[in-house]
Amino acid sequence: MRAGPSQEEIRRQNLGALLRHVHLSGPTSRAELTSRMGLNRSTIMALTADLTAAGLVREELPRETGRAGRPSLVVRPESSRVYVLAFDIGVDRLVAARVGLGGVILDRAESPRDRGPFSLGEVSGLLAGFTGQMLKKVGADAVCVGVGVSFSGGVRRLDGVVRFSPNMGVADVPLGAELEARLGLGIPVAVGNDANLGALAEQARGVGAGSRDLIYLHGDVGIGGGIIASGQLLGGHGGYGGEVGHMVVNAGGRPCGCGSRGCLEAEVGERALLEAAGRFGHQVGRDAVRSVVDAADRGDVVAREALLRVGDWLGLGVANLVNIFNPEIVVFGGMLREIYLGAAAQVRSRINTDVLYASREHLRLRTPVLGDDTTLVGAAELAFAQVLADPLDALARVGA
Amino acid sequence: MRAGPSQEEIRRQNLGALLRHVHLSGPTSRAELTSRMGLNRSTIMALTADLTAAGLVREELPRETGRAGRPSLVVRPESSRVYVLAFDIGVDRLVAARVGLGGVILDRAESPRDRGPFSLGEVSGLLAGFTGQMLKKVGADAVCVGVGVSFSGGVRRLDGVVRFSPNMGVADVPLGAELEARLGLGIPVAVGNDANLGALAEQARGVGAGSRDLIYLHGDVGIGGGIIASGQLLGGHGGYGGEVGHMVVNAGGRPCGCGSRGCLEAEVGERALLEAAGRFGHQVGRDAVRSVVDAADRGDVVAREALLRVGDWLGLGVANLVNIFNPEIVVFGGMLREIYLGAAAQVRSRINTDVLYASREHLRLRTPVLGDDTTLVGAAELAFAQVLADPLDALARVGA
Repeated sequence: MRAGPSQEEIRRQNLGALLRHVHLSGPTSRAELTSRMGLNRSTIMALTADLTAAGLVREELPRETGRAGRPSLVVRPESSRVYVLAFDIGVDRLVAARVGLGGVILDRAESPRDRGPFSLGEVSGLLAGFTGQMLKKVGADAVCVGVGVSFSGGVRRLDGVVRFSPNMGVADVPLGAELEARLGLGIPVAVGNDANLGALAEQARGVGAGSRDLIYLHGDVGIGGGIIASGQLLGGHGGYGGEVGHMVVNAGGRPCGCGSRGCLEAEVGERALLEAAGRFGHQVGRDAVRSVVDAADRGDVVAREALLRVGDWLGLGVANLVNIFNPEIVVFGGMLREIYLGAAAQVRSRINTDVLYASREHLRLRTPVLGDDTTLVGAAELAFAQVLADPLDALARVGA
Repeated sequence: MRAGPSQEEIRRQNLGALLRHVHLSGPTSRAELTSRMGLNRSTIMALTADLTAAGLVREELPRETGRAGRPSLVVRPESSRVYVLAFDIGVDRLVAARVGLGGVILDRAESPRDRGPFSLGEVSGLLAGFTGQMLKKVGADAVCVGVGVSFSGGVRRLDGVVRFSPNMGVADVPLGAELEARLGLGIPVAVGNDANLGALAEQARGVGAGSRDLIYLHGDVGIGGGIIASGQLLGGHGGYGGEVGHMVVNAGGRPCGCGSRGCLEAEVGERALLEAAGRFGHQVGRDAVRSVVDAADRGDVVAREALLRVGDWLGLGVANLVNIFNPEIVVFGGMLREIYLGAAAQVRSRINTDVLYASREHLRLRTPVLGDDTTLVGAAELAFAQVLADPLDALARVGA
C-alpha cells in the first residue's frame, strides 16, 4: 500500500530498465528500445545519454542492417569497462571470474577443492589471490560495480552469513564479511545459495529465458532448489526458501546429513546413487556419477537398477514440486543433469502418475543451457543487481 | 523491464492505495494516511476528494479524539453503499453474502449441501436465488463493484473454469460464466480456489496480517493450500499452484482420489481420520472430525491413535512445506483446525525433526482468526480487487 513513485524514482527505474535490456539482450537499437519499453523516442534518447555519460553504455552504428535508409544507432553495454567479480564455491571446486556488463566472462581462474571441512580463511584467501592476479590485467578506466558469491548452503539474506551447509561442514560462517575484508575493494559482497543463483541465471540467460514460473534443481553432493514464482525468486522469511533437498520423499528411508530420514537428498544425492551401484568409496564427484550413468547405458545391470531407483525418487520429488508450484519449466542442473538424462523415463512416469493433469499440461523438463557455469553466472547476476536497479546511485556507491 | 508508470498511472495507483488503506484498516485520519503513504497533505486531500466524489469514501469528524485542538478529519469507507457479492461453494455448504467496502458482511444466506456430484445448474440457480433475495433489500444508490467465488477445486486463472475437483466430482466446468449469466448483473464473476482465497483473507484481515510469507492449509474433504511468498499469492503457470494436498508424503500409502497413493490428502483428509478411528460411514463432515478429536481428548484409545497417526503425517507434510518455503506463519483452516488443535505436539515434533533449524527458527503455527468465514472473506477480497487496483476505472466498468 505504498504510494506511487516520484518523478525522480521513475527516471531511476527507467535508467535501470534500459540498462537491463542491453545487459540481457546485448546491443539493441534505439528504435527497438522505444518499442520494447513503451516510452517515446525523446525519453529513450535522454536515458541513453545519461547512461553514456556515466560510462555504462555507448552508442554506435550497427555493423550491417541489411536495410536501406539511415540505420538506428545501437546501444551497447560497456562490457570491458564495467564489470563484477563472481565467485562459485562448490563442494568440489572454487571458481573466480571477472564478468563484464552484458554477461561476458572476461577472465577466470579455477581450482579443484578437496572434500572435507570448509575453512573460511583458506577459501577466502585463495579467492582473493585469484582476484589479485585478475585485477593486475585490468585497465585504469575499468570499474568494478559489485561482487557476488554462489555457495552450496543456506545463506541469510540480511548479511551473507552461511547458516548451514551439512555437506561443507559449516554453520554460521560470515562469508560475505570475510571475503569483503580480504578483497579490500570497499565493495559489499553479496552471497547467495547456489541453486537460487542457478535459477536466476537460467531465467536471465538460459533455458528459462522469459519464463515467470521456473524450478531449478541443483545436485552437487547434496540437492538444492531455486524457485522462481510469478517472476520472483522465492526467498522465504529469512532467505532460506527452496531447500527442496530436505523434503521427505521416503518416510523412514535413508539417513540424511540434516538429521532426518528419507529426504530427497538422501535418496537421490551422489552417495545414494554410488551406494546403490556398489561404487561408493572409490571415486567421488561428477565423474563418478557420470560413470554410473555410462555403465547403465552400456547394459550394466547393477548400475541400471541404481539409476532407476534414484530416478524414481527424483521423479517423486519433482512431482511433489509440480503439484505445489505448477511451474512452466523444471531444470536439472549440476550432477542432477546426468541423473535426469539417464532416467528421464522414470521421472516423466512419476510425474504422469502423481501430478494433477492441469498442473502438468504445459510442463517442460530441461537441462541448463549454461552448463556447469550456471551458478557462476548467477553469482555475476547477483553482483549486477545494484547497478541494474539504480545505475547512477550504484556507480556513486563504488566511487565511480 | 517495463518502463516506469506515467503520471496518470501513478494517480490511479495512489487512489487505489488510499482506498485499500481504509478498506483494510477502517476509518483513518488524513494525518495518518499522510504519514503511512509517504505523500504530502495536499496530495492526500486531492485523492480523498476524488474518492469522495466517486462515492467510495466519506470524510467526517471522529467520534472522540481525547486530544485538544482541531481533530483531523477521518476518511471512512462507504460500506453500506459500495459492496460486492461473495460466494463460498464448499463440499458441505453453500454461502452467499453481500459484503460492504471495509469488509463488513451486510447480509448472508447459507444452505447445507448434500455430498455427491456437483450440479452447475443447481448450485448456480440456488446462489442466484439467494442473491435475488438479498438485492431486494438494497437501497437504490448502492453499487455492486464485483463478484467473487471460492470453490473447492483447481481453477484456471484466465477464465474461472474449474479444471478439477476430485472431491466435488467435476472437471472443466465454466463456473464463472454460468454464474455471471444467472446473476444477470453484467459484472464478471471472479473464481478462486478456496485455500488460495483463505490465504489472502488471513493475510488481509486475519492472523497473518502484515506477513509476507504465509501458508494457509485448508481441510475440507480434501486438503488444499494457499501460499503467499514475498507478499504475492503463488499462482503458478496456469493458476493451479498450491495443490499441496497431492504432495506424496507416504510413498505407496493410501489411495487418493487423484489416482496416486500416499498424498497428504489421502493420509490426513477426513476419510483417513474417520477410517483410522473406525468411524467411517456413520457421520461425515466437520462434526464427525470434531467428535474424533473430542473422543481422543476424553481418553478413547482408538480415537487417540487415529489422531496421532494423522497428526504425524500432517506434521511431515508441513515440515516439507517449511523446508521448501521458509514461511513465517502456517495457518490450519477448515477441518485441519480441529486436527491441528488435537495433534499439535505431533506436528511440532515432526517439524523439529525434519526441518533445518534456520528455516523454522521464526516459524509460528496458528489457526484462522476468521474461523469458518475465511474462504468467504477471501472471495469478497477477490471481488474487491478491481476497485482497489483502480477505483475510478472499476466504477466506470460497472456503470456507476
